[in-house]
Amino acid sequence: MSFNSFGHMFRVTTWGESHGPAIGCVIDGCPPGIPLSEADIQPWLDRRRPGTSKFVTQRQEPDTVRILSGTFADERMAGPLTTGTPIALHIDNQDARSKDYGGIRDKFRPGHADYAYWAKYGVRDYRGGGRQSARETASRVGAGAVARKVLNHLVPGGVTVRAAMIQMGPHAIDRARWDWSACEQNPFWCPDPQTAERWGDYLEGVRKAGSSTGAIIEVLAEGVPPGWGAPLYGKLDQDLASALMSINAVKGVEIGAGFAAAAFSGEDNADEMRSGPQFLSNHAGGILGGISTGQPVVARFAVKPTSSILTPRRTIDVQGHETDILTKGRHDPCVGIRAVPVGEAMMAIVLADHALRHRGQCG
Amino acid sequence: MSFNSFGHMFRVTTWGESHGPAIGCVIDGCPPGIPLSEADIQPWLDRRRPGTSKFVTQRQEPDTVRILSGTFADERMAGPLTTGTPIALHIDNQDARSKDYGGIRDKFRPGHADYAYWAKYGVRDYRGGGRQSARETASRVGAGAVARKVLNHLVPGGVTVRAAMIQMGPHAIDRARWDWSACEQNPFWCPDPQTAERWGDYLEGVRKAGSSTGAIIEVLAEGVPPGWGAPLYGKLDQDLASALMSINAVKGVEIGAGFAAAAFSGEDNADEMRSGPQFLSNHAGGILGGISTGQPVVARFAVKPTSSILTPRRTIDVQGHETDILTKGRHDPCVGIRAVPVGEAMMAIVLADHALRHRGQCG
Amino acid sequence: MSFNSFGHMFRVTTWGESHGPAIGCVIDGCPPGIPLSEADIQPWLDRRRPGTSKFVTQRQEPDTVRILSGTFADERMAGPLTTGTPIALHIDNQDARSKDYGGIRDKFRPGHADYAYWAKYGVRDYRGGGRQSARETASRVGAGAVARKVLNHLVPGGVTVRAAMIQMGPHAIDRARWDWSACEQNPFWCPDPQTAERWGDYLEGVRKAGSSTGAIIEVLAEGVPPGWGAPLYGKLDQDLASALMSINAVKGVEIGAGFAAAAFSGEDNADEMRSGPQFLSNHAGGILGGISTGQPVVARFAVKPTSSILTPRRTIDVQGHETDILTKGRHDPCVGIRAVPVGEAMMAIVLADHALRHRGQCG
Amino acid sequence: MSFNSFGHMFRVTTWGESHGPAIGCVIDGCPPGIPLSEADIQPWLDRRRPGTSKFVTQRQEPDTVRILSGTFADERMAGPLTTGTPIALHIDNQDARSKDYGGIRDKFRPGHADYAYWAKYGVRDYRGGGRQSARETASRVGAGAVARKVLNHLVPGGVTVRAAMIQMGPHAIDRARWDWSACEQNPFWCPDPQTAERWGDYLEGVRKAGSSTGAIIEVLAEGVPPGWGAPLYGKLDQDLASALMSINAVKGVEIGAGFAAAAFSGEDNADEMRSGPQFLSNHAGGILGGISTGQPVVARFAVKPTSSILTPRRTIDVQGHETDILTKGRHDPCVGIRAVPVGEAMMAIVLADHALRHRGQCG
Repeated sequence: MSFNSFGHMFRVTTWGESHGPAIGCVIDGCPPGIPLSEADIQPWLDRRRPGTSKFVTQRQEPDTVRILSGTFADERMAGPLTTGTPIALHIDNQDARSKDYGGIRDKFRPGHADYAYWAKYGVRDYRGGGRQSARETASRVGAGAVARKVLNHLVPGGVTVRAAMIQMGPHAIDRARWDWSACEQNPFWCPDPQTAERWGDYLEGVRKAGSSTGAIIEVLAEGVPPGWGAPLYGKLDQDLASALMSINAVKGVEIGAGFAAAAFSGEDNADEMRSGPQFLSNHAGGILGGISTGQPVVARFAVKPTSSILTPRRTIDVQGHETDILTKGRHDPCVGIRAVPVGEAMMAIVLADHALRHRGQCG
Repeated sequence: MSFNSFGHMFRVTTWGESHGPAIGCVIDGCPPGIPLSEADIQPWLDRRRPGTSKFVTQRQEPDTVRILSGTFADERMAGPLTTGTPIALHIDNQDARSKDYGGIRDKFRPGHADYAYWAKYGVRDYRGGGRQSARETASRVGAGAVARKVLNHLVPGGVTVRAAMIQMGPHAIDRARWDWSACEQNPFWCPDPQTAERWGDYLEGVRKAGSSTGAIIEVLAEGVPPGWGAPLYGKLDQDLASALMSINAVKGVEIGAGFAAAAFSGEDNADEMRSGPQFLSNHAGGILGGISTGQPVVARFAVKPTSSILTPRRTIDVQGHETDILTKGRHDPCVGIRAVPVGEAMMAIVLADHALRHRGQCG
Repeated sequence: MSFNSFGHMFRVTTWGESHGPAIGCVIDGCPPGIPLSEADIQPWLDRRRPGTSKFVTQRQEPDTVRILSGTFADERMAGPLTTGTPIALHIDNQDARSKDYGGIRDKFRPGHADYAYWAKYGVRDYRGGGRQSARETASRVGAGAVARKVLNHLVPGGVTVRAAMIQMGPHAIDRARWDWSACEQNPFWCPDPQTAERWGDYLEGVRKAGSSTGAIIEVLAEGVPPGWGAPLYGKLDQDLASALMSINAVKGVEIGAGFAAAAFSGEDNADEMRSGPQFLSNHAGGILGGISTGQPVVARFAVKPTSSILTPRRTIDVQGHETDILTKGRHDPCVGIRAVPVGEAMMAIVLADHALRHRGQCG
Repeated sequence: MSFNSFGHMFRVTTWGESHGPAIGCVIDGCPPGIPLSEADIQPWLDRRRPGTSKFVTQRQEPDTVRILSGTFADERMAGPLTTGTPIALHIDNQDARSKDYGGIRDKFRPGHADYAYWAKYGVRDYRGGGRQSARETASRVGAGAVARKVLNHLVPGGVTVRAAMIQMGPHAIDRARWDWSACEQNPFWCPDPQTAERWGDYLEGVRKAGSSTGAIIEVLAEGVPPGWGAPLYGKLDQDLASALMSINAVKGVEIGAGFAAAAFSGEDNADEMRSGPQFLSNHAGGILGGISTGQPVVARFAVKPTSSILTPRRTIDVQGHETDILTKGRHDPCVGIRAVPVGEAMMAIVLADHALRHRGQCG
């Protein structure tokens, strides 16, 4: 058991608070012999980094990752390889502003974990959200980059994991216009350029009003071979649900047709097969009985609006007295934006874990 | 790691196939000194039992549970108490019909786990679905009954866990008419008597057409104190997502406002607090930052339509040849019905596990 | 976490008390496609069975094992194969004599776990030792038989695991006379026929005096390839130490030269290598840095004398009053005898677990 | 599962290689509200530090520990408290000499893990032993210091864990002269001043000859309440065996009377009880049935001689060619010396873990 680890054969343990000296993680179980250096990880971190547009927190963090263990190179080798020993990733915190926390240190922000932490632990690091801060997700993205290397090492042809935002607030994309290349060309990872433009206007309004909005993100993994996953408590979809629900602010997860499947008939829902094997549809989202079918793995998750808003909300303080609170500071009007690379990372981590588990049991 | 266990401090390991001699589970970590006998478990199993209405499988299974270990009584005691050692529950399979499986043993039923199991293991018990069968959920309900005892033992005032079906196929209930007592008075665990009647007609049509339909179930736990759960990979909502997604045919899970939260503004979403502490709303579904807040814990999950239908579907066989398949036999037109007590059980198991984990770390 | 499970990829969970209706275990993670039926397990159980000589408990238990899940055969197959799903083994208790426990139910037998269980749980099944009884080791031997099948399935040439008693009370064997075939020809698993005879006389005296004696057992695994095990908390020797120490009444474990290595010089201790690779000695016991070297894996464990003796001992009762106790009933004058097949089983389980873990991480 | 973690409720994951930039660990599950700063940890690290006498490696490492997460203080608090979130300890490597490793990088040092790592992973960091180096034990000592704080927080009166070397090479102490205060007054943690002197002469000879010697260490925990531990695979002695065997170069572990118990009679071995409860002897080493009895917990472990010696030994290289090897460099003639604080640390970690597990299950 562990409160801050995820995975079994590919196991990630994260540590660190928003305003502590650093954050990081330890990746245990990575197979040996995989080329790995900071250059394989940093680009993924750069995609999640704060301060990259006006729509994400203005905190300035270079998020420079260092690998402190688990790889080795000497002058006879082309570059560092993983050694099978634990890989420690380390990211220094830089822009942890020493501002006055007087406003929030004794008050519980509604919608935040403040009260729950206090009720559980009796003590909490309230600076920047402490351990609850989305800053922790940088470690996930770093571990996800290593997981991608593992997947490409294990699967001939490679596994591609990518994600897109498909709804912001009440505004969904038009799936008919889906274009993956568009995702990198707008600040929202939106695969539909027209909707991206509309979101820009919408979110600008939200931001100026000091408000916030939620989002839905879709994650897709292609190249996953059939057979990953396990009955009945080691299901691939179960672990994906766990992984995605573990991301800050996530309130729902679905696989394939998801909640819509409730309204389907059995005829509609059955993904018929032809030789290949080929599937004529993918309502299952690439997973049946908890095991991958070889079809693309499709998951979706819902992110609630950022709790930190400029409109005063009613709350209580640690003494139980009623008061109001208003959260100033550098925050994300739509925390779902930065959840896109995090969702990808968690999908990659789950797949790498299951790839190794499957190899262990079934060869 | 384990492929067939769930939980950490309160850990359930299930075993058994649909047409094997028996099914069962081992519950490890149950606290000592709790009164427990079969009479505490059987009523919950009876609620999930097949053959109780025309809307569930006609397989006849008494599902009589036996406790084979982990409790003790002598003549000086009022009745058996848990001893802190593993509790083995055993349920014999009786009505495993020795019918001809020629029709399906070499074909993959679309929407079923047949192909995925075969691709993973190369061998599978196809009789009645083998390990994939919903029959396994009887063990979960048994373990859930023990979890309820644990919760009531630990929490003064007790914890109540109950569930209801809130949508069948495309037909949702009217929440304004919610009446928990109605749930026991219709075969659908429907809290809205008017909708229950409508569902009866609808499902009768589905059944007669040899078709099937999906459902959405809501699970509610009242009495959960604040502080259960843990950052960041031991979150209560994360484990609930994992637990509910581990149930056969489930394709989506949400907590509190769930997917609807994506469309909320930060102002709407924040559950304001007043002294008590009291919350003025419960969009969080009783969980913030992965930790319970003391509000009711609310989860919802979507069940896809049963894959076994009478309309022929295109598929392939184990040699890869194209063919058609039609699944005869005793099946559930809406497998979501029997998922209601299973969802309750999984919620109870997650809560018991977290109650003990919390006590371990925080006293 | 689990209190009653052992292993990670090959994971065994046992349940059951000495005088309950049955005992058993669930084996999770067994690879699919391995021929397995009761006939593969029963012979190993028969070796551990009570009542086979006057030197072991006279309790009469056929220890007939049933496989309740995890294997499958149809008429087209040569016999049952493992399916990759959990394997439940079930052994009924038969000769659980309903004698009067008045003598011991309220007293703590010195050297027994009675007081510790009572201090921990506040309630205990005192009948025949309850969960503390060596009866639980039948489940281990059953799981060990499955582990042997896994090892032989994974390693071309197979892995042989066997054990012998090398010391009874103060009387050690002469290693120069070691003959494995002798082990099956005396009731002590003694590889030295001359010493076996001497032990017979010695133990007869112990038995008649109502006393008991300890023993040392050596376990040897041949055919283990290099590379199994892992740094630094997943070491093969560490898991062997854990496995062997988990057997009832064991007080010490050593690997290779063991405690004697403390007196060695570095020159003596180094197992030099020649091409092959060949090792010129095996002080390491086949394990270096926690990883197998390809040499035979050698472990030794010490078993204390049975605590149940006929000489009255001073003790207290549950009220804390001072009293005397004398344990009547059917007991083993040297519980080490029956620990021999159990030691083998635990070695096999550890090796199977590490074989699968190694395959998972390193392919 | 994890290859580099130890413990369940108090879980330590270590990372780092001997000649990498740093080493460290993450401690997960520490209860909140315990005062903790570097000053609580550094003194324990200083006891294990290399370069403190001519009898330990001359590598110069200040081993300055930094706490990077998991504690919090603001100006209103007396000092930092644990917050219940993961505690990351970080220790920079400083004196990792960039010497030429040509001599050993392609050869396997007999008695070292070189060959086993290479056989397992196909790649290894040979610099200073890489991950196999005893340098990793600094992380253990750091985690052990935190475990001590946890124990003293949980147990009124506190738990004292200390260790002593009781045999060096063939020379055992005289237990009649045992004096704990002597341990800090010689470089060997020897509780018998006369023997310490003798060891000094002996080890000086070993050192000058470029040889090495083994040792036996005894660890004692006082103040452990009855009830910690669990049947049957979560035994306190089992976890101690695992913990101590996980230390580099350890080849044997025993509890209480240990291997000597094999020669005992049942009468001798039984620790009789008187009211209190009091035990009239402690052959059990404070543990019966895997559960603590309230008596002092006593464990012993054997450390083999350091494998790095100046006398050439026969070996092979990575191509399988036969060759000789001689290990120059800064090494410990008796690595058992530095194992003393490490043994203490592992005992403390096991106890803290079991204290929390017990509280979780039994309240």
